[in-house]
Amino acid sequence: MSIASQPEARRERRRSRSSGAAARAAAAPEKAAGVNPAFLNLTNPFPPIKVFSDDQIEAIHETSMTILEEIGLRILLDEAREIFRKAGADVDESSQIVRFDRNLILEAVAKAPSSVTLYSRNPLRNVTLGGNRVAFASVGGPPNVSDLEHGRRPGTLAAFSDLLRMAQSFDVLHVITPMVEPIDIPPGLRHLEMTRSIAVLTDKIPFLYSRGREVVADSLEMMRISRGISREQFQAEPSCYTVINANSPLQLDIPMSKGIIDFAKTGQLMVLTPFTLAGAMAPVTIAGALAQQNAEALTGLALAQFVQPGAPVAYGGFTSNVDMKSGAPAFGTPEYVHAAFASGQLARRYKLPWRSSSTNASNAPDAQAAYESQMSLWGAIMGGCNVVMHGAGWLEGGLTASFEKFVIDVEMLQMFAMLFRPPPCDEGALGLEAIREVGPGGHYFGCAHTLERYENAFYAPLLSDWRNFETWQETGSVDATQRAHRIYKDTIANFTPPPLDPAIRDELDAFVAKRTEEGGADLES
Amino acid sequence: MSIASQPEARRERRRSRSSGAAARAAAAPEKAAGVNPAFLNLTNPFPPIKVFSDDQIEAIHETSMTILEEIGLRILLDEAREIFRKAGADVDESSQIVRFDRNLILEAVAKAPSSVTLYSRNPLRNVTLGGNRVAFASVGGPPNVSDLEHGRRPGTLAAFSDLLRMAQSFDVLHVITPMVEPIDIPPGLRHLEMTRSIAVLTDKIPFLYSRGREVVADSLEMMRISRGISREQFQAEPSCYTVINANSPLQLDIPMSKGIIDFAKTGQLMVLTPFTLAGAMAPVTIAGALAQQNAEALTGLALAQFVQPGAPVAYGGFTSNVDMKSGAPAFGTPEYVHAAFASGQLARRYKLPWRSSSTNASNAPDAQAAYESQMSLWGAIMGGCNVVMHGAGWLEGGLTASFEKFVIDVEMLQMFAMLFRPPPCDEGALGLEAIREVGPGGHYFGCAHTLERYENAFYAPLLSDWRNFETWQETGSVDATQRAHRIYKDTIANFTPPPLDPAIRDELDAFVAKRTEEGGADLES
Repeated sequence: MSIASQPEARRERRRSRSSGAAARAAAAPEKAAGVNPAFLNLTNPFPPIKVFSDDQIEAIHETSMTILEEIGLRILLDEAREIFRKAGADVDESSQIVRFDRNLILEAVAKAPSSVTLYSRNPLRNVTLGGNRVAFASVGGPPNVSDLEHGRRPGTLAAFSDLLRMAQSFDVLHVITPMVEPIDIPPGLRHLEMTRSIAVLTDKIPFLYSRGREVVADSLEMMRISRGISREQFQAEPSCYTVINANSPLQLDIPMSKGIIDFAKTGQLMVLTPFTLAGAMAPVTIAGALAQQNAEALTGLALAQFVQPGAPVAYGGFTSNVDMKSGAPAFGTPEYVHAAFASGQLARRYKLPWRSSSTNASNAPDAQAAYESQMSLWGAIMGGCNVVMHGAGWLEGGLTASFEKFVIDVEMLQMFAMLFRPPPCDEGALGLEAIREVGPGGHYFGCAHTLERYENAFYAPLLSDWRNFETWQETGSVDATQRAHRIYKDTIANFTPPPLDPAIRDELDAFVAKRTEEGGADLES
Repeated sequence: MSIASQPEARRERRRSRSSGAAARAAAAPEKAAGVNPAFLNLTNPFPPIKVFSDDQIEAIHETSMTILEEIGLRILLDEAREIFRKAGADVDESSQIVRFDRNLILEAVAKAPSSVTLYSRNPLRNVTLGGNRVAFASVGGPPNVSDLEHGRRPGTLAAFSDLLRMAQSFDVLHVITPMVEPIDIPPGLRHLEMTRSIAVLTDKIPFLYSRGREVVADSLEMMRISRGISREQFQAEPSCYTVINANSPLQLDIPMSKGIIDFAKTGQLMVLTPFTLAGAMAPVTIAGALAQQNAEALTGLALAQFVQPGAPVAYGGFTSNVDMKSGAPAFGTPEYVHAAFASGQLARRYKLPWRSSSTNASNAPDAQAAYESQMSLWGAIMGGCNVVMHGAGWLEGGLTASFEKFVIDVEMLQMFAMLFRPPPCDEGALGLEAIREVGPGGHYFGCAHTLERYENAFYAPLLSDWRNFETWQETGSVDATQRAHRIYKDTIANFTPPPLDPAIRDELDAFVAKRTEEGGADLES
């Protein structure tokens, strides 16, 4: 006998298929808004795992300080070198190399807030990064998109919009990313169409590219419009973010430097993430790659603080290794997990929010994609990460956004959200009276203790199929990836965009029309 | 440029494909024996994750003590009840219910060793369970076997033997299990053929079923013969183990009780694992299921200590939840991870080695199988588990042993073995001089720091394919499960059995022939 022989249980179950049964307890405003509170405002109750001793972290810190003092970074943007020079750094204009006294950098970084709240037009979607708070972001940056029906192809605005619909549909995703490059839109107009789609299709915290000053200015203005607030309020309430990748080793290019400056000036979040693949753009040793990552990250973070003390920033760690056979990047490896744990230790040393990633190097949304992503997720999350980038949809080391992988990832993220909720251990949960009632040799399906709790007792999966083999086989032996495809299609078919004031929509459209008429943005600006 | 443009690198890489590059450092006796030392004698450097506070663990303990004192367990074997009665327990013969003073149980359990070494005929294969040591075992108990070529079918001795070949071939597996039920062998002879296959095809620590006294006596004698040692030495050196499942809730059946007694008498390891699925055979709450698990486990462990104080035992935790829709068991869930972390806390409270499992409820060796297994592996391993049962090959909640899943699991276990080896952080690893040499904008492929280390720098995967999409596509778009199939076929084709003294082999064959002629074992014995 099963509890589900009761019709109410079946109905309840169907209704809540993708929302997590354990989440439906509280009758909160979130619920009224159709949002699952169990997947919002996540806090990680587990102390971070450390891979290095505190002394070893200090040795990595010391090495990065020596890098800053003796080797320096090449800073390609004149304006950035000038900011560093004025702050007191040693600038060699002929080589564009900038060297730093360690205190210069450390004092600047100390001005960064240890926690940042990002504001949405829907306050339920606000996200705080810092301490033991955790947010999940979708995949960012791939040129390609794929699904089982159409295969792998270059990104389009339509695919980008469908990926936005996916990201909006699952409450466990809190932060939007540039999920695929819409190459059907001319480069100078691309940010306009992307930002409009973001504003129309989602109310979650969006990402903006740093691809020149006009792109940033346009995108920020559209974000401000979408929130319907003044420039002053937008400046005071970070509402979006960018990711700046150092050009490892030890370089910061022109658009990235401009992005750091512009995001600091406008009070929006900047995540500084060196691209340190051990054995390629960083030493083949994890400790060495981390020392370099740390020098690069702190330099970019300090630049933001020189521009605007207290500017909201996050420390990004992306150190992984390459396959020494081919030079190809590897992800979700043991070395990746070590680097993630260590990056968390470093970020906490500087009291900064920490960004990590859910990554894999598989070419298909298969078992490899799942186990590599799980490895990196556990590395990030149990390392104490505050925001997990690439949390849904990443494939091929970031070259493809996969719709099926998106669904697989959402299932994994929802499981982590449930993992963050330690089970109750009060008298009712200990269940002595139920154990007494059932006694040796009985079963718990029908007892009062079960009937009172079964609805919210366990996580209800989105994707996992727990039916027995015979039933599964009779219904077509549909594997997880094929089921993910169906869930993706259903999600798109059932999508409803979040509310947006028609006047704001008109203002956005007018802005896009005007800037398009003007020829869009100069990417060299 | 890649390091592998050097032919030596390519050759080295091919040679070591399945062994893990980071493992080839030490020129140890293991290496001479063709065994990878990186995968033996694993120790977990990470402190265990706790899900409950110490006070909550005490509350679970207290509840289980009250269960023992007030509710009791039904013990079906007369001899076991008599042992309990003589030890001082309160026995009700009419109901077969035994109740225990908590001190009776706790004092008995305190006699169990906190660490157990299991001895192989090949000393390199000895396994120690306890403290921060970790051993991995293959899948145990399925009635079915499956692979991509032949599909799912009932187990046979041939399939059992192939699974033994797989388990023997990967050094990261330390403990053998009854990997599939060979139903083509009559029940009374089955243990003879299984144990002979184990002894001939592997030199790892074997599992023996507790299916009546003659089965146990035959199997133990064959194990003694395979080690070529005296009865005294066999008694003093645990060389195999059994798993006893309590018949939850709160029952211990006849063959299981006999197994506890016989393994204690012969000094072999007994793992007591209650089968507590929350919502079915245990309370729907994880805390309640754990309280019941704890009462059941401690009762069985105490029985072993009453029979033989100091008998080697381990605390097994298997608590998971069921799907409340269908009653089907669910595995690798958030609740499973919570229960795993908590079971580790309980086992450590009683200073006992802890057994957990790598589980999933998928019907195919797909992404679901991978992510559910990863969840349960992290729960077990980061919870401080000493032996992970079902570590390779488990599918369908344990109803099928899958050859492809076996390979996928070995890859995951090898990654954990590497994760247990924190990276160096000495001056060489910090790599300051390499960073200075390469400088801003350079790359590390050719530098001396890389050339000195690249061979052993990173884990070399068994299954993961890190080639770019185009190459992967040109070579047939072979996904992880299909690659796992090829690795399985290659492994079987290239298998060499471990050395076994021909005289011992003859003695085993003679024993099997004699017992077969006698009609095999009486399963009711």
